[in-house]
Amino acid sequence: MFIPGGIIALTTDFQTDSFYVAEMKVAAHQIAREALIVDVTHAIAPQDVKQASWILLRALEAFPEGTVHVCVVDPGVGTDRKILAAIIHGQAVIGPDNGLFDVIASRYHVAAIIELNNEVYFGPRRSHTFHGRDIMAPMAAHLVRGIPLESLGDSLHRPLVTQETKAKIFAKRQENEIHGQFIYADSFGNCVTNIFEDDIPDDWDRRRLRVESGSHAVDGIVSTYGEREVGASAALVGSSGQLEWAVVQGSAAQKYGFEAGIAVKIVRENA
Amino acid sequence: MFIPGGIIALTTDFQTDSFYVAEMKVAAHQIAREALIVDVTHAIAPQDVKQASWILLRALEAFPEGTVHVCVVDPGVGTDRKILAAIIHGQAVIGPDNGLFDVIASRYHVAAIIELNNEVYFGPRRSHTFHGRDIMAPMAAHLVRGIPLESLGDSLHRPLVTQETKAKIFAKRQENEIHGQFIYADSFGNCVTNIFEDDIPDDWDRRRLRVESGSHAVDGIVSTYGEREVGASAALVGSSGQLEWAVVQGSAAQKYGFEAGIAVKIVRENA
Amino acid sequence: MFIPGGIIALTTDFQTDSFYVAEMKVAAHQIAREALIVDVTHAIAPQDVKQASWILLRALEAFPEGTVHVCVVDPGVGTDRKILAAIIHGQAVIGPDNGLFDVIASRYHVAAIIELNNEVYFGPRRSHTFHGRDIMAPMAAHLVRGIPLESLGDSLHRPLVTQETKAKIFAKRQENEIHGQFIYADSFGNCVTNIFEDDIPDDWDRRRLRVESGSHAVDGIVSTYGEREVGASAALVGSSGQLEWAVVQGSAAQKYGFEAGIAVKIVRENA
Repeated sequence: MFIPGGIIALTTDFQTDSFYVAEMKVAAHQIAREALIVDVTHAIAPQDVKQASWILLRALEAFPEGTVHVCVVDPGVGTDRKILAAIIHGQAVIGPDNGLFDVIASRYHVAAIIELNNEVYFGPRRSHTFHGRDIMAPMAAHLVRGIPLESLGDSLHRPLVTQETKAKIFAKRQENEIHGQFIYADSFGNCVTNIFEDDIPDDWDRRRLRVESGSHAVDGIVSTYGEREVGASAALVGSSGQLEWAVVQGSAAQKYGFEAGIAVKIVRENA
Repeated sequence: MFIPGGIIALTTDFQTDSFYVAEMKVAAHQIAREALIVDVTHAIAPQDVKQASWILLRALEAFPEGTVHVCVVDPGVGTDRKILAAIIHGQAVIGPDNGLFDVIASRYHVAAIIELNNEVYFGPRRSHTFHGRDIMAPMAAHLVRGIPLESLGDSLHRPLVTQETKAKIFAKRQENEIHGQFIYADSFGNCVTNIFEDDIPDDWDRRRLRVESGSHAVDGIVSTYGEREVGASAALVGSSGQLEWAVVQGSAAQKYGFEAGIAVKIVRENA
Repeated sequence: MFIPGGIIALTTDFQTDSFYVAEMKVAAHQIAREALIVDVTHAIAPQDVKQASWILLRALEAFPEGTVHVCVVDPGVGTDRKILAAIIHGQAVIGPDNGLFDVIASRYHVAAIIELNNEVYFGPRRSHTFHGRDIMAPMAAHLVRGIPLESLGDSLHRPLVTQETKAKIFAKRQENEIHGQFIYADSFGNCVTNIFEDDIPDDWDRRRLRVESGSHAVDGIVSTYGEREVGASAALVGSSGQLEWAVVQGSAAQKYGFEAGIAVKIVRENA
């Protein structure tokens, strides 16, 4: 059972400072004036479902139980793609069924999936191109007001993510190596990977691990930026609990051109 | 009579993430702590009154009755240009008298116009260069608190927009064509026009309409992006009820260089 | 004694629309749900402590007594640099002890300094790289809830800024000249200086002052932009009470390349 906590979190590809964000907020506030709406980010690259699926994981881990996330990266708006709400990690996540749920549904248990098709809870405006405003934000607001999830549409009884997709998302251990990839750069140009802290065995000495990508490498996994010189590379487990490759007071994304999808691995030296 | 609903909506050319926005919000909250302040956008091109006048229309149609809009695109700040509040579409709109009201006053009935000159309701700070903070935000907050509009200054009894200006704003039907122009691009690069859905006669078959601008053309007006291939042009009525020219999962603004003021027309083929 | 007013103001170098901002807001709201969180700006240049120290002055002068400011420009995160809270101008300012306090502590009396080291009031998440979320935002929220400042850590009894640093921050009068420097450009490209209105003697005729920087000069200090032609330079005291060099409806920063640190002076002509 989902107990709403009053917060709505927005993650979209509308781009920063777009009036579309305001239109979604107003659509939600007209139903739940008391909702606290927090912008996660609107700077997802346009139509980049994969990037959004990873940012959703960050958001899910940052927000409290009872949060309603609305994620609008929706190139298929107006076609027959479904709009879903899923209960994951004690929070409700609303978004189009286009892969946005892949990462969170792979990492956490999915407690329920509803197709948001009960038009009673749609908003008053109807367009073919902006379901974030017309359907998703109103649905989120109804959840905040205490309308039960099951009232918003039909329950779906199928996995939210396939085993095949799941197998491709996370990093893989191969003896003395962990193979992963970059997934996004943060606003400082620190390049975040899909290698989690708990992927690295406790008995591996972090000072003797080497992180490699293409022809670039950095020795040792440190705790914080200040352990390396300004301008040097630093590999560390960032605030999301994932391995990242940083350049101290610089941008690893710019310096090395690391982009989402590029392979990165941890190698245990002299193991 | 204007009944405040508690929301203040901000539209400015301060540019995204400017500390000027914070200064306006604080000026309002010091008077009406309970106000819900929503950013429409601060990315209006600097001093671009015309662009702002169209975004105000979107905002007016998105926000509920009782909203107080504050629009600060104010190159004449500190000169003798007036600051006005007008009641339009059940909402109060505050801004300098420099053309910002042209579009909304042409499309909707103007119920009242007040010159905001009662210094009793100015804020505590006084500058010659930031009346958004010193006058407009405080006035908006007083409205939210229930101070009657008429108390804020002198009533003006004149049209807010001239017939001549009004005649230039909207698209024009010429037999089997509708002549309009681009007015702004949204954050995806979709190019919005001044042709409204209700400008297109119901008995025109949308599949047989052709949209043209310069040497570019697109056949048919579709319902949503997914009806065209990725990378192709799509003409459709967007979420604001206005015709827009999109490139599916791309940017029409970038691909074709469509800018505000460039002519665009709908042609009824084989009519 | 500090009496919280319920507002938390955020100034960071996380860059606009970063999900790090959301993580800080959530960390604060989980402790003080009722807090009103206002973004000052997140567009401080990465690691630019000096720029942030000046924006903090603007913020301090814009926000009401009782505000809790959190300023996160923190290249030394995770090292042994301290995190401080200082009571200045009736407000609490939280940030790393790296120079962020230099300007405000030079201009206003510092009523108290606390090292925020009482782990009881840290947040539930602990990283080595994001103390804005893990320590500073939770501490701010506890202040808002009424936890006394002294409970949050050890009182420090030393100056927050040295006399030597203080001497370098402000402009200096030299007979008929005032020597200062540019400190930042606002979002319009107006170049703000460290020369305050009260640095200019009342008996100096502003029309006969000349503002110079390198080979560029502008005659007269005006009240507002509209007193000069579009495209011309205008020197004026801006909304922060500091001298700025503007280009009317243009960008002085772009036109002249004025950057933080470049010298600028006021010369009293024919004195």
